[in-house]
Amino acid sequence: MNNNPVIEKLGHRLRLAVIGGGTGSFIGSMHRQAAVLDGRFEIVAGALSSRPEKALSDGRLIGLQEGRIYADAMDLIRVESERPDGAEVISIMTPNDSHFRYATAALDAGRDVICDKPMTNTLTDAEALFRKVRETGLVFCLTHNYSGYPMVRQARAMRENGDLGTIRLIQVEYVQGGKANENDPAPTGSVPWRYDRVRGGPSLVMGDIGTHAHHLVRYITGLEVASLSAEVGTIVPGRKTHDYAGALLHFDNGARGCFWVTQAAAGVENSLRVRVSGTRGTIEWNQEIPQQLIYKPLSAPAEFRTPNGPGCYPSAVRASRIVAGHPEGFHEAFANIYADAAEAIVARRTGASADPLALTYPGVFDGLMGVRFVHDVIRSSGDNGRWVDCNTKEPTLA
Amino acid sequence: MNNNPVIEKLGHRLRLAVIGGGTGSFIGSMHRQAAVLDGRFEIVAGALSSRPEKALSDGRLIGLQEGRIYADAMDLIRVESERPDGAEVISIMTPNDSHFRYATAALDAGRDVICDKPMTNTLTDAEALFRKVRETGLVFCLTHNYSGYPMVRQARAMRENGDLGTIRLIQVEYVQGGKANENDPAPTGSVPWRYDRVRGGPSLVMGDIGTHAHHLVRYITGLEVASLSAEVGTIVPGRKTHDYAGALLHFDNGARGCFWVTQAAAGVENSLRVRVSGTRGTIEWNQEIPQQLIYKPLSAPAEFRTPNGPGCYPSAVRASRIVAGHPEGFHEAFANIYADAAEAIVARRTGASADPLALTYPGVFDGLMGVRFVHDVIRSSGDNGRWVDCNTKEPTLA
Amino acid sequence: MNNNPVIEKLGHRLRLAVIGGGTGSFIGSMHRQAAVLDGRFEIVAGALSSRPEKALSDGRLIGLQEGRIYADAMDLIRVESERPDGAEVISIMTPNDSHFRYATAALDAGRDVICDKPMTNTLTDAEALFRKVRETGLVFCLTHNYSGYPMVRQARAMRENGDLGTIRLIQVEYVQGGKANENDPAPTGSVPWRYDRVRGGPSLVMGDIGTHAHHLVRYITGLEVASLSAEVGTIVPGRKTHDYAGALLHFDNGARGCFWVTQAAAGVENSLRVRVSGTRGTIEWNQEIPQQLIYKPLSAPAEFRTPNGPGCYPSAVRASRIVAGHPEGFHEAFANIYADAAEAIVARRTGASADPLALTYPGVFDGLMGVRFVHDVIRSSGDNGRWVDCNTKEPTLA
Amino acid sequence: MNNNPVIEKLGHRLRLAVIGGGTGSFIGSMHRQAAVLDGRFEIVAGALSSRPEKALSDGRLIGLQEGRIYADAMDLIRVESERPDGAEVISIMTPNDSHFRYATAALDAGRDVICDKPMTNTLTDAEALFRKVRETGLVFCLTHNYSGYPMVRQARAMRENGDLGTIRLIQVEYVQGGKANENDPAPTGSVPWRYDRVRGGPSLVMGDIGTHAHHLVRYITGLEVASLSAEVGTIVPGRKTHDYAGALLHFDNGARGCFWVTQAAAGVENSLRVRVSGTRGTIEWNQEIPQQLIYKPLSAPAEFRTPNGPGCYPSAVRASRIVAGHPEGFHEAFANIYADAAEAIVARRTGASADPLALTYPGVFDGLMGVRFVHDVIRSSGDNGRWVDCNTKEPTLA
Repeated sequence: MNNNPVIEKLGHRLRLAVIGGGTGSFIGSMHRQAAVLDGRFEIVAGALSSRPEKALSDGRLIGLQEGRIYADAMDLIRVESERPDGAEVISIMTPNDSHFRYATAALDAGRDVICDKPMTNTLTDAEALFRKVRETGLVFCLTHNYSGYPMVRQARAMRENGDLGTIRLIQVEYVQGGKANENDPAPTGSVPWRYDRVRGGPSLVMGDIGTHAHHLVRYITGLEVASLSAEVGTIVPGRKTHDYAGALLHFDNGARGCFWVTQAAAGVENSLRVRVSGTRGTIEWNQEIPQQLIYKPLSAPAEFRTPNGPGCYPSAVRASRIVAGHPEGFHEAFANIYADAAEAIVARRTGASADPLALTYPGVFDGLMGVRFVHDVIRSSGDNGRWVDCNTKEPTLA
Repeated sequence: MNNNPVIEKLGHRLRLAVIGGGTGSFIGSMHRQAAVLDGRFEIVAGALSSRPEKALSDGRLIGLQEGRIYADAMDLIRVESERPDGAEVISIMTPNDSHFRYATAALDAGRDVICDKPMTNTLTDAEALFRKVRETGLVFCLTHNYSGYPMVRQARAMRENGDLGTIRLIQVEYVQGGKANENDPAPTGSVPWRYDRVRGGPSLVMGDIGTHAHHLVRYITGLEVASLSAEVGTIVPGRKTHDYAGALLHFDNGARGCFWVTQAAAGVENSLRVRVSGTRGTIEWNQEIPQQLIYKPLSAPAEFRTPNGPGCYPSAVRASRIVAGHPEGFHEAFANIYADAAEAIVARRTGASADPLALTYPGVFDGLMGVRFVHDVIRSSGDNGRWVDCNTKEPTLA
Repeated sequence: MNNNPVIEKLGHRLRLAVIGGGTGSFIGSMHRQAAVLDGRFEIVAGALSSRPEKALSDGRLIGLQEGRIYADAMDLIRVESERPDGAEVISIMTPNDSHFRYATAALDAGRDVICDKPMTNTLTDAEALFRKVRETGLVFCLTHNYSGYPMVRQARAMRENGDLGTIRLIQVEYVQGGKANENDPAPTGSVPWRYDRVRGGPSLVMGDIGTHAHHLVRYITGLEVASLSAEVGTIVPGRKTHDYAGALLHFDNGARGCFWVTQAAAGVENSLRVRVSGTRGTIEWNQEIPQQLIYKPLSAPAEFRTPNGPGCYPSAVRASRIVAGHPEGFHEAFANIYADAAEAIVARRTGASADPLALTYPGVFDGLMGVRFVHDVIRSSGDNGRWVDCNTKEPTLA
Repeated sequence: MNNNPVIEKLGHRLRLAVIGGGTGSFIGSMHRQAAVLDGRFEIVAGALSSRPEKALSDGRLIGLQEGRIYADAMDLIRVESERPDGAEVISIMTPNDSHFRYATAALDAGRDVICDKPMTNTLTDAEALFRKVRETGLVFCLTHNYSGYPMVRQARAMRENGDLGTIRLIQVEYVQGGKANENDPAPTGSVPWRYDRVRGGPSLVMGDIGTHAHHLVRYITGLEVASLSAEVGTIVPGRKTHDYAGALLHFDNGARGCFWVTQAAAGVENSLRVRVSGTRGTIEWNQEIPQQLIYKPLSAPAEFRTPNGPGCYPSAVRASRIVAGHPEGFHEAFANIYADAAEAIVARRTGASADPLALTYPGVFDGLMGVRFVHDVIRSSGDNGRWVDCNTKEPTLA
């Protein structure tokens, strides 16, 4: 991903404005570093905080010009859309309940959008945003960043190329320990937005990491969850939102699956693991060592795949910046999503055809499916684990 | 486990007769090697096959004297019980549907019993065997051999010593690929006993490996499954028995869990993995690298435990035969179960008190709980995934 | 490393010019991405190739303005030094034999310098460059990037904090397979500069990776090699330069060590591994999984250290951009070296004191020691493996 | 190795007498368990200690009959050789300086011999024992047990089958921490035999583990060390024998190598690792996870080999007792050496041809080469690291 079709084709880097992600937000600097890593974007404007003073100091800290620092995101969208040198792309990394409002405003202003996940808290918003994106024809990219890892792309390519055969069995877990401590959030004091069901969504664990696990499986397998039997709940005493969820899954090709996510597993760092077994073999991937993919054929020795190593398919090679044996990480995976969005935006604007390998980045339908999944899990859980059918259709446009 | 209280206390090795396990049976040589590894048992008699000629040739192959080779297991039990130098212990490694008959006969003949798992195919048999064992007061040991691994014993000891705190979340998987091939069993020809629901039990995958996973969790955590929501089914076309099962679990202390077992994951060898998270930390163990236990405290660096390495509790040290860094494996874990049974048998016979660390070997109640679990999973699966309560009580004796 | 003292203190990003690193050079894009990742540098000028047309097209590709694209590196240094908005820092990533010339010119022009390794091919050049840097007082940073990994910094900090006790034994290997193929370089055609002893230096394997391994050990342990017994040679038939080297080492505190590097190990990717044992414990690190550091205390369980995980010292925490469990890689390690150089440059220019944790980046003395090591290895090897003493003193200044 | 040609062909298990290995000796129980695991040997006699009382109590503990317990090893050899039902094989696990005496006596008495390593302390003894074995035509097996691991046999088979091509580069390390503590042996009190250069040999680290590493390389590669440049010494203060050694190696085919062994690396358990690179690929094996062999072809994805898994050659399959995924360990590797010795002994006695796959067990020439290696390392080390030539020829017989 070292070539830079953006500058070649547009003559300048894409001008990006960021909403949210001020100091103290881990995801903010991640978005910004991902944006600039490959030289496809230039960050020209920002509303990094809803508190005016913080917006100003944070904006200065990241090197924004004075006139391009905004205390109000809606102002940013309006003003930047009107400037001749204004931001062409809006990147949103605010609390979940505001994604819909900012994304819709940006799209209405003709801006391409990059948005953090989960896409929205409600199904209604998700469907409305789906329609908005389809109607405007603009690019909407949702940062399910784990799909940017080279070995995840390799896994997808191996499935596409038949190395797995027909998929039969899928396991995915996303286990963290960051919320295992009973004193988090502090029993007294204001509730952080993530723990507030209005702002953070109906299920913290499902919105935060469940949607990542769900998307990862869909991305690799190309399958949709057709029905599920689930439980979602709270295991840490005193917590007001969900911190674990489990589900048994039927996929639309008949494959079976198991899904387990929690943020309450003391001491576990970020164990997003997936195993996909088909008639011809199994792949295993673990986010904590993302530079390895294990492939276990039905009746031949198990193999490694490593970024830019032997056996990598073009989509994986394209997602690596460096020769084999030099690990890339979370940043580069995240940057791959940004790079793909840039490719799509340039194609949209120039009419040139995009590299098809770039067009697997998560979009608005993926976001909608994630929101549906959250709600389906809650639905089954509330009905004694009954199997519920999942809607896998695109909403009809007006 | 190098000291040998059997010889010290009885003056001779325990005389063991084996039923089943002739050539072609992987588990047969395993039982025999486990029995002799520590010098606590001497194999004196055997009915290795129900086919007379094979019984004879197999018996000779393992070095039995001519007069101690039997073609009929019931004959063996009868004759050996009457000989003054007859077998003191009967080890059963026959198809599942015969465990009950042989075990009952052996107990009736006053023999201590070591039996392969699953204990029985039916709940009725399991409860009857439970009562028989309790009534006779004899030793009954079920070879859930994974509980013999030093690091599994360490995991249990860490839980007992509070290193995990209150257990909240449990994941267990037992994933194999040995039955991923659609041509196994061969479409034509007789059905091997495992694939026959009468002989192999109502659910191949649950009996073969599901009960192992279930016991492993119970052994480490000391908890019982209080209720479950499950699905068990068949994913390989043409197969007549189950090859995968999943379940969400509630434990009797309120902990939540996820259970996934299959034998149809192409290329996977023997991935029995468990993760137990409590308020103070998480442990992770993987049977394919059994010489490592990972301990992740709530807020301190993750640690290894290795057999006979620093930090091992007495029950783990006792289960190792060798200095740290020299891996032991499946055989030694299996032998630990035999060694524990020997300790219990000697204690029973001499009236001496047994080493309490030996008394964690799986017994008849563990076997009953395994059979119940198989049936509960089938029950929930047949009722659309509804949560079903599990009976965790001991049957009343007459 | 998310705060940005450069912009805070200078009011703008450091203006950087790059020499070398055009398309086709893996290290070029690495330098540029490392420079911009944290927003401390802006790349304003470049002489990416000595071929004028390539210099122009490559410069455009990375988004340089037309007037800031140079076909000649010496022109770049002269012109940029005279512009009021000219490059403040020069980054050099050209063939090894030109490092000295460009670095000297840049320093003479008052520019701070970041330079790829090995520093020079000859001892004379290395000593002259040492004196030049000391005389000018400018910042000179050599990109021994492996010392930028958070877990390498943790290793150093653990040594500094006494977690290892007195160091006794050191093993380091740097094993690659990239040059295992006998047809590389192609038997016909021009010789790539790396394989040419004039341009690439007296020993390809020692310059390419031997100096990295040497610096890594010095960085972690704080020790110097006092004497060595070595062999360096060529194992791949037809090759005109070295492709393996081994050495036994005595360190200046009496510790013993073993050093092994090769680029001819077929199929190995980039196995830079180090093990340092002291009286209190051992640390082990492997560049292929850089997100793990293993610490084995003398008599307590082995432990993991992970970036931003429990037990990390401030210098390691500072080198991570992200919460634990989200792997960073080669890029971020490389960027840490750039960030440290930026910190030092700002301190030099503003007179403010730099964060002492930033001042471990490799400098001109490290570069000199690397060149000396290359020559000492060659010297011992040429004298039948005789132990030779190593000069560990700073050259005297005029 | 589950079939049992011993009983088939001789009609009884081989009668084994053990010399040494009483309680407190880790290697004693290992030998005995290895001997009986596969049912090829029966332990009929023993002189477990040179202290009569301990000899008696230890003999009883392992179940020997009263009349077969000896306090003197030479008595054992004499008496057992004369009994019609006497021991046919003598296994020696005494301090190193006595191996020669007991082995010679046993061979003179017409007994086959299994002996612990190092074979002898002196070159003179080693050569004399070589001649004695050749002259008697009896079986002499030296328990370099690491060559019994299935994946080590697989490594050898892969080399033999050309999977590595021509071998170029070899690395071996054997690193332990068991002697890192300065208080071991206790500064006061008698010196344990291992630390006594007369009884333990001229170099503790070389005899204990250096010979293992040396044999492992020879076993896998089929190459001999032709010359070496080495250092051996003492790093732990106050120690009277060697605790580390390093060497650079030239093999007889021109391959280069690096050798590093120490017992003073605090916290390291038993890191015996080997990497062998040839023109077609590299293999890597680590004794701490012996159930994995990594194969890295020149230009195809790296692969695993696992015991009884896909891709295993017959010699590896033969060395596994169990289906893939069920780890075997140190005991089973050790037992494989005993099983091979049994195969050779039966062949010698019956005149039947032995399974050629059994005949790779370490013998008297391997023992001699080990002793020569120890002395060559000492020789080079004493001569300032000068390269010394190694004698790789068999001694001439009288």
